[in-house]
Amino acid sequence: MDLLSHYNIKPGFNITRASHVVLGVKDLDLSRRFYVDMLGMVMTAEEGDTIYLRGLEEACHHSIVLKHAPQSSCLRVGMRVQTEDDLDPLKSHFDKAGLPAAWVDVPHQGRTLHATDPVGTQLEFCASMETRPRLVLAFNQFHGASPMRLDHVQIFCPQVVEALQFYLGMGFRLSEYIVSDGTETPRMVFLHRKGNPHDIVFARSPGPRLHHVALTCPESFHLLNVCDMAASCGFGNSVEYGPGRHFGPGYARFVYLRDPDGHRVEFFNSHYQTLDIEDAPIRFTDSDLVAGPNVWGVNRAESWFAEATPFA
Amino acid sequence: MDLLSHYNIKPGFNITRASHVVLGVKDLDLSRRFYVDMLGMVMTAEEGDTIYLRGLEEACHHSIVLKHAPQSSCLRVGMRVQTEDDLDPLKSHFDKAGLPAAWVDVPHQGRTLHATDPVGTQLEFCASMETRPRLVLAFNQFHGASPMRLDHVQIFCPQVVEALQFYLGMGFRLSEYIVSDGTETPRMVFLHRKGNPHDIVFARSPGPRLHHVALTCPESFHLLNVCDMAASCGFGNSVEYGPGRHFGPGYARFVYLRDPDGHRVEFFNSHYQTLDIEDAPIRFTDSDLVAGPNVWGVNRAESWFAEATPFA
Amino acid sequence: MDLLSHYNIKPGFNITRASHVVLGVKDLDLSRRFYVDMLGMVMTAEEGDTIYLRGLEEACHHSIVLKHAPQSSCLRVGMRVQTEDDLDPLKSHFDKAGLPAAWVDVPHQGRTLHATDPVGTQLEFCASMETRPRLVLAFNQFHGASPMRLDHVQIFCPQVVEALQFYLGMGFRLSEYIVSDGTETPRMVFLHRKGNPHDIVFARSPGPRLHHVALTCPESFHLLNVCDMAASCGFGNSVEYGPGRHFGPGYARFVYLRDPDGHRVEFFNSHYQTLDIEDAPIRFTDSDLVAGPNVWGVNRAESWFAEATPFA
Amino acid sequence: MDLLSHYNIKPGFNITRASHVVLGVKDLDLSRRFYVDMLGMVMTAEEGDTIYLRGLEEACHHSIVLKHAPQSSCLRVGMRVQTEDDLDPLKSHFDKAGLPAAWVDVPHQGRTLHATDPVGTQLEFCASMETRPRLVLAFNQFHGASPMRLDHVQIFCPQVVEALQFYLGMGFRLSEYIVSDGTETPRMVFLHRKGNPHDIVFARSPGPRLHHVALTCPESFHLLNVCDMAASCGFGNSVEYGPGRHFGPGYARFVYLRDPDGHRVEFFNSHYQTLDIEDAPIRFTDSDLVAGPNVWGVNRAESWFAEATPFA
Repeated sequence: MDLLSHYNIKPGFNITRASHVVLGVKDLDLSRRFYVDMLGMVMTAEEGDTIYLRGLEEACHHSIVLKHAPQSSCLRVGMRVQTEDDLDPLKSHFDKAGLPAAWVDVPHQGRTLHATDPVGTQLEFCASMETRPRLVLAFNQFHGASPMRLDHVQIFCPQVVEALQFYLGMGFRLSEYIVSDGTETPRMVFLHRKGNPHDIVFARSPGPRLHHVALTCPESFHLLNVCDMAASCGFGNSVEYGPGRHFGPGYARFVYLRDPDGHRVEFFNSHYQTLDIEDAPIRFTDSDLVAGPNVWGVNRAESWFAEATPFA
Repeated sequence: MDLLSHYNIKPGFNITRASHVVLGVKDLDLSRRFYVDMLGMVMTAEEGDTIYLRGLEEACHHSIVLKHAPQSSCLRVGMRVQTEDDLDPLKSHFDKAGLPAAWVDVPHQGRTLHATDPVGTQLEFCASMETRPRLVLAFNQFHGASPMRLDHVQIFCPQVVEALQFYLGMGFRLSEYIVSDGTETPRMVFLHRKGNPHDIVFARSPGPRLHHVALTCPESFHLLNVCDMAASCGFGNSVEYGPGRHFGPGYARFVYLRDPDGHRVEFFNSHYQTLDIEDAPIRFTDSDLVAGPNVWGVNRAESWFAEATPFA
Repeated sequence: MDLLSHYNIKPGFNITRASHVVLGVKDLDLSRRFYVDMLGMVMTAEEGDTIYLRGLEEACHHSIVLKHAPQSSCLRVGMRVQTEDDLDPLKSHFDKAGLPAAWVDVPHQGRTLHATDPVGTQLEFCASMETRPRLVLAFNQFHGASPMRLDHVQIFCPQVVEALQFYLGMGFRLSEYIVSDGTETPRMVFLHRKGNPHDIVFARSPGPRLHHVALTCPESFHLLNVCDMAASCGFGNSVEYGPGRHFGPGYARFVYLRDPDGHRVEFFNSHYQTLDIEDAPIRFTDSDLVAGPNVWGVNRAESWFAEATPFA
Repeated sequence: MDLLSHYNIKPGFNITRASHVVLGVKDLDLSRRFYVDMLGMVMTAEEGDTIYLRGLEEACHHSIVLKHAPQSSCLRVGMRVQTEDDLDPLKSHFDKAGLPAAWVDVPHQGRTLHATDPVGTQLEFCASMETRPRLVLAFNQFHGASPMRLDHVQIFCPQVVEALQFYLGMGFRLSEYIVSDGTETPRMVFLHRKGNPHDIVFARSPGPRLHHVALTCPESFHLLNVCDMAASCGFGNSVEYGPGRHFGPGYARFVYLRDPDGHRVEFFNSHYQTLDIEDAPIRFTDSDLVAGPNVWGVNRAESWFAEATPFA
C-alpha cells in the first residue's frame, strides 16, 4: 500500500505540531480540581466560563482549554503553523477540498483558522499565542503528574485511510501503523510533524471522537505518583488503564486517566526521535501488541477501547 | 477482640525475622532464567538439584532455595532466631503444643528446627547461615527488579484467628488486620518481628498454601522495569497484578509476578517502621481497601485471590 | 581489638532506636520555611517557642523539635526504649557510671530520662509519645524530599573508642567502623539497635557536636528533587554535599543540606538490613572510601568535615 | 543586538539535527569498556580501527564513532539534512564563504560533505545512514545510563558571535544565550534545528575544541546510576561534574563524565520544546546561573571550564 511507505519529506504546508485542545466540561470547579489541584497543570487564566491551562514547560498561553458546556464534548483540536503566512495556503487547501474553513477570532491566539477534516475532526490552526513564563524551574509548583507539555491527540473515526491520505497531503509523516492480522489496511495510523512519533493518531472506531490528549511527564515516578495523587484527591476512579508499557507505537510508559467529564488524558514519559529520511513507517499487527510472553499488562479496560468524547 | 489490641512487647521467643523459603520447581533451568537472568537475584550456589539464591544486599547464603521437584510446592518457610540457644525453647514450645518439631541438618545453615504451626505451615528455624559478600555496591550486576532482600511471606489458611493466637504467643506483634464489613473477626492478619509491618501474613482461604514471598526493590522505577524485563525475557505473562499501590496494610507500591511454577513473588519499595509501644494494630475493613474514589487500581486478577502454592 | 568483633546479641537495656532530636534555632519562621515548606516535613504542632515536626510515615508526635534559642545548638538526641519499665535500669546504669541522669517532664512524651553519655552527648530516653495519623497515603501533602522518618544521628567527639565501649554496654551493635590507614583504632563507629546499620554514629573530631540527623526519603528522584526545591524556595545554598553515594558505611545514596542555623540534615534512600548473628562489623579504611577509580563524587565540601552543631 | 532577536523561521538550508561525532581514541578496548560495558551504548559494528556506537532508541547506524588515533582528538561533528538534494546548496554556501567543503565517502552513510565552519569546527553533513533496529524494547540490554540518543554538541571557540552569525545563516534558531554581567555580547549561544533547545552550542574559550557531546537518558535514576556503574567498572574518576541541575540554558538535570581520552559526555533527561514563532531567545547573565540561594550545586570542577578536545 503506497500510503504506508510515503515519505513526505517536502511538506507543502508548514504545520509544526499538535498544540492544544478545547474541551466542553459540565462543572468548571470540579475540572479545575482535577486538572490543576490533582494533575498539576498550570492555570494561566480563568475568564468567564473558560479556564486556560498549560504544562510546566510551556510558554504558550494554553494547551488545554476548558469551557463550561451542557454536555461533555470536544470543541477543537489545535495545531500550530510556523508563521501567520502559512495559514493562507491551508485555508485554500480546505476550500478546494470542499471542507469547512473559516477565519475566527480566538482570545490569546494570533489569526486563527477553523477547519474540519474529511473525517469530521474539528480543527483549529494558528501561528502564535500570547506567552507566559515557562515554569521549568518553579519546582515548588510541581505536583501530581508534573505535566510538562501537550504532545499529541488521538481521534476515533471509521475512515482511517481517508484520514491518513488527507494528513499526508498536509505534510504529516507516518511514523507507525497497525494492521489487523491477515490484512494490510491500517486500522490505526500515527502521524507527526514535530519529529517524535505522534502529533495526531487515527483509530478505527465510530466517530469522529477524541480518544485522548497526551501530555508528557518527567519520569516513571510521576506515572505512579499521579495515580496516588488521584486517590488523595478523590479521583482514584479516574485511573483507567496503566501504569503500563506500550509494546506497539510509541513504545512509551503510560497511564490513562478520565477527567470528570470522561475526557481521557494520557501521561507518558518516553518517545523516540523520528526525523531522518531513512525512518520508514513501522508496521505492527494486532498480534504484535498483545499476544504471548513478550508483552505484559495488556488487560485493558473495556472502556478504553470503546469510550471517547464526541465533537460538539 | 483482645488479640487485636495485643501488644506483645516482651516476647518469650527471640525470633528476629522471616528469612527464607524453599520452593519445589519442576524445571531448574527455567526457574534460574526467571529468578537470576530476569528478576536479578544472585545465585550463591548450585548443588545437585538445588539452587540457592539471595538478594543484592543479603549477606546470608540464601533467601530463596529452589529444589527440583515433580510438583510445584512450598517445602519450607524459614525464620531466624537471634542465637542458637533461642532454638531450644521453640522446640519445647512446639512439643508442648503437640505440633511436629524435629532437628534437621540443612546445608549452609546452623542448627535447624523443622516445625509445623497449627494451620499447617511448614516452618524452619535457624540462628545462622554461611555468609557471602553483600553486593550492594556491585552495580554492574544489578538488573531486573534489583531485588535487595526477602521481606515477608503470606500464607493462605482457613484458621486465621488460630494462626494469630499462635504467632502472638511466639512473640510476634500484630501490625495490621482486615475485617470483613460488619464483623470484627479478622480475615487477614499481618505479623512482624523485625520492626516493619510484615514478616508473616495469614489470609483466610483454603490452605495451608504460600500466597507469596515478598522482596524489596529500590525504587518505583524497578517496579516498572521488572515488568519490562519480564517481557524482554519472554516472561511477560508472569506479571499478574500491578504495578499498583496497596491502600491497606503496608501501604506499599508493589507488583506481583508468578514464576514458571506459579509461585508468586511480590516486589515493593516502601514499608513503614513500626517499633514503638504506642504503635497499635491498624484495623482495615474490606471497604477501606477497594471502594470509592480514594483508591486506584483495585481490579485485581482473579488468580491473585484464588491461587497459591500448596505445601509439600 | 575485641570491641570491634563484639556481638552484643543479648542486650541488657531494651533501647529500640534513635527517635528524635531537639534543636535550638534562632528564627522559627525561617526554620519552618526550611523544614516544612521546603523539605516537606509535617508540622504536628506549634506551641509557644517550639515547633514539633515529624516525617510522613511517622505516627510519633515528633522526630525533630525546633526551639527558639539565642544560639544554634543541639539540645537533645532522643532514643526510645521498649517500655517505661526499661527506663529504670538505664537510670541506674548512668548513675553507677557517675554520669548525669535525671527524670524530666517533656510535653507529648511519656516518662523521660535526661542523661549524658561519657563523651558529652545530651541524651533523652522515653518509651512512648502521643501519636498522630501516619500520612503515608496523604500524597497531596508530599513535596520536597518527602521525608519519611528519622533514621539516625551522627556525633563528633574526640573519644570514639570510649563512646563505642559505652554504647556496646547499653546493648547497641556495631555494624561498621572506619580505621585510618595503618592503624586498628577506629576513628568512626556505626552503632544500631533497630536492625539497619545506623542509629548513632561517632566520628573523631572536636566535640561533642551533632554532625547530622538523617531522614529517609523514598527514591533517588527525591534526592535530586529536594535540591531543586531548595533552589525554588531560596535555600539553594543549603545543599552542601551530594547527591552522591557512600562507598563506605551504609552504602546509601544521599544528599546533605544545612538548615538556616547550620544544622545538617542528611537524606538517603537505601540502607541494608543487619539483624543476623553472623552479621559481623564491617571494617573500612580511609583508602576504601576515597581512593581510586572505584568510587565517585568524593570531593566533599570542607565544611562537611569540619562544621557541626555544639550541644547547648 | 540584532542577532539575538533573530527568528529565522524560513531557513534556507534544510539541516534537521546534530547527529553524530567522530572521536580519536588511543585505546579502542578501553573505550569500548567505557562506552559499551559501562555507559550502556550499543555497538553497531567494529571494523578495523573503528567502533560504531548508537543509543538504545537510535535507528541510525552510529551516533558516536571511535577511531584509533595516536592522540585524543575530535575528527568530525556530524549533522543531518533532510534529503540528499539539500546537500548541494550547503556545498555552495561553504564554497561562496571561502570555507573548506568537499565530498567524501564515509562508510554506512549516504553522500557526505566535509566542511569547516568559520571558527574551525570540522563538520560533516549527510542525509541518511544505514539503519539498525531501535532497541527501545530490548530492556534486557539496558544498563548504565541507558543512553537513548545523541542530542547536541558544545564547541569552545573564541569567536562566538561569528559562529552565531554563520549558524543563523544556515537556518539554525537561537534558543538561549549568556552574556557576561554588564555586557550584551553573548559569550555563549545555544542553537537548534530540531525543536528542543540545543543542537550545537558555542562557548567563548580557546578553540576550536569539542567541549562535550550530550546524550539523553530516561530518568533521574539513570543520572545517579551511571555514576554508580562508573565506580563498579573502575571508571569512578570519570565523573567530573554533577549529578546536578542547569539553572540556565536547557534547565536540564545532568551529569558529565570524561571518557578514557578525556572526551566529555553529558547525560541529561529533560529538555523543553521550542518550536513556536513566539519562542524568543532567552537571555541569561552569568549572575543568573551561579549566584545566590536560587541555584544549587554550582561548584563546578575547574577542568569542566578549561578542558576540551582539540580537533584533529
